[in-house]
Amino acid sequence: MIMSFDRLIRKIQEKNNPTVAGLDPKLAYIPAFLREEAYARCGKTLEGAAEALFLFNQGLIDALCDIVPAVKPQAAYYELYGWAGMRALCRTIAYAQEKGLFVITDGKRNDIGSTMEAYALAHLGATQVEEESFEAFGTDALTVNGYLGSDGIQPLLKVCDEKDKGIFVLVKTSNPSSGELQDRTFEDGLSVSRTMGTMCEQWGSERIGAFGYSSVGAVVGATYPQQLADLRKELPHTFFLVPGYGAQGGGAKDVAGAFDEKGLGAVINSSRGIMCAYQKEGCAPEDYAQAARREALRMRNELNSCR
Amino acid sequence: MIMSFDRLIRKIQEKNNPTVAGLDPKLAYIPAFLREEAYARCGKTLEGAAEALFLFNQGLIDALCDIVPAVKPQAAYYELYGWAGMRALCRTIAYAQEKGLFVITDGKRNDIGSTMEAYALAHLGATQVEEESFEAFGTDALTVNGYLGSDGIQPLLKVCDEKDKGIFVLVKTSNPSSGELQDRTFEDGLSVSRTMGTMCEQWGSERIGAFGYSSVGAVVGATYPQQLADLRKELPHTFFLVPGYGAQGGGAKDVAGAFDEKGLGAVINSSRGIMCAYQKEGCAPEDYAQAARREALRMRNELNSCR
Repeated sequence: MIMSFDRLIRKIQEKNNPTVAGLDPKLAYIPAFLREEAYARCGKTLEGAAEALFLFNQGLIDALCDIVPAVKPQAAYYELYGWAGMRALCRTIAYAQEKGLFVITDGKRNDIGSTMEAYALAHLGATQVEEESFEAFGTDALTVNGYLGSDGIQPLLKVCDEKDKGIFVLVKTSNPSSGELQDRTFEDGLSVSRTMGTMCEQWGSERIGAFGYSSVGAVVGATYPQQLADLRKELPHTFFLVPGYGAQGGGAKDVAGAFDEKGLGAVINSSRGIMCAYQKEGCAPEDYAQAARREALRMRNELNSCR
Repeated sequence: MIMSFDRLIRKIQEKNNPTVAGLDPKLAYIPAFLREEAYARCGKTLEGAAEALFLFNQGLIDALCDIVPAVKPQAAYYELYGWAGMRALCRTIAYAQEKGLFVITDGKRNDIGSTMEAYALAHLGATQVEEESFEAFGTDALTVNGYLGSDGIQPLLKVCDEKDKGIFVLVKTSNPSSGELQDRTFEDGLSVSRTMGTMCEQWGSERIGAFGYSSVGAVVGATYPQQLADLRKELPHTFFLVPGYGAQGGGAKDVAGAFDEKGLGAVINSSRGIMCAYQKEGCAPEDYAQAARREALRMRNELNSCR
C-alpha cells in the first residue's frame, strides 16, 4: 500500500493547517544576535554563515512545530554557502523531522534517468558506500522539473514507492514570466502547464493513497488564481504545493481554488511572510520566532476561512 | 566587452579538441585501490566516499589537462554523498581550474528570479558574508533549465556579465523521453525545444563574444542528430554543450552537425567513455587515468575528423 502524501495530509488534518513554512534563510533575514553567535563559533566565513542559517531555522522550527505540518527549505539558499550550507540543509531537515514536521526540499532537480537516480537517492533515498547505507539528505518530498519527460521522473517514483516519499513537479510556477513557456498552447489546444499536469496524473496513476492523491504532486503558483482553480479540477489525484502566497502577492482568496471540496488537496507556502514577520511587526529581533508563530497562526486562520 | 564562451573557445583552439570530459564519479567506476585509500583516511562513510571521488577526479584531471579544454562535473553524483560530496565538487572545480581547465557544472538549476540569484551567486559568482566575499563553488559555466522563463534566467546573465561566465540552457536533451515535451509543437508550428532555443538567442543577444557566440549556450543531445544539425543552423549565436556521445549511443557522425563551418560552435561531452576506459580496455586499475587519456585522444581524433 502506497501512502506518500497521506503522511503530509494527516499532519495537515492533525494541526488543522494547510501551511508549509518556507525556510529560505538569507543572511539579511537573520537577526544580528544570531549571526554574531554563529560567527563567534565558526568565524565570519561560509561555515559561520551556515551556522547562522541553522540557528535561525532551529528557532523557527521550535516555534512552529506544533502549529504547522510542514517546512520547505529552498536548496538555493543553502547552496549559496557552499558545502557548509548544504550541511546546514542536512541538519535543518533532520531537526525538523525530529520535531515531527514533514520536510519538502525545494530543489527543482531534473536530469536524465541515470543521473536522476543519483538525485533521488541523495534527497529521498539512501546512498550506498560499499556495504554501508547513509541518508545523505533524507527529506520527505522533493520538488522537480519535468522538462526531460518520463525517464527523468521514473527513478524518483521507484524511491517514492520504496520509502513512502513524494515529489512535486513544476506545473505552473508563481513568477511573472512563467507564462512565456508554460502558457503557450499546443496544437491540441492545451497549454504546456496543463500538459505537464496531465503527465503528473499519469505518473501518479498507480500510486494513489487513502485521500485520493498520489505521490506525484504539482507546484502551482498562487499568483495565477484562475489557472490554479482550473488545474485543481483537471488534476483530481495531484496534490498541490502552492507558492506565491504573501510576499509574492497571493492572498487567501487567490489560493481558495487550490483546495478540493473537503478542504484538502494543497499546502500553501509562505517563506518571507513567516521568516521576516519580526521585521514587519517591528518587534525585538530576539522575538523573531514568536513573531513567526503569530504570523503562522494568522495565516492558518485566514486559510481555514477560505477552504 | 563581454567574452564569456570566448575563454572556452580559445582553450578548444589551443588544444585542438572540442571534448569536455564528464566527471560523474560513481563509486562503482572508481578503482578499489583509490576507494581503500580514501576509506583508510576518512572511514567507510559519506566523507570517505567523497574523498574517493576527489582522488579519482584528481588522477583524471592530471592525465587529461594538457589535451582537453574542459571538464563537466555532474552535480548529482556529488550530492549523492551529501555535504561531503558537495565539498568534493568544490575541491574538484578548484583543482581543475588550477590545471587550466574550463569547468562546466552540470546542475540544471532553475527557480524564480530571487532564488535563481542565490544559485547564480553560489555557482558562478560570490557569496557575501557581511563585509567578506567567498566563492562557494566558483565554476566557469552552469547548466540551467529554462522552464520558468526569463526572470529565472536574468540573475544568471547579470553574474555572467560581471564575472565573464556562461550558462547552458536545456534545449533538446539526450534522453529517450526528451521528446514527450520538447518535441511537441505549438500553434506556430515550432517545437518546445526550438522555442527554448529562440529564447537562448534572445537572452544572449546583447552578450556576443569575439567568435560570434554569446554567453548563453544550449544543451542539445547527440542522440538526435537531425535536430542537432537543424538547431545549429537556426541558433547561430548559441554555443552548444552536446551530451550523449559514447555510452549513450551518439557517435562522431551524429555530432558532426553540432559544429559551424569553422569547426567551432560546440563542445562534446563524454563521461563514462573516458572515466571507465580502463574497464573497457581491461587494463590494470592503477592505469585508469592513462586509459582515460588514451580514450580522450582517440575521441579528439575522431571528432576532429568530422568537424
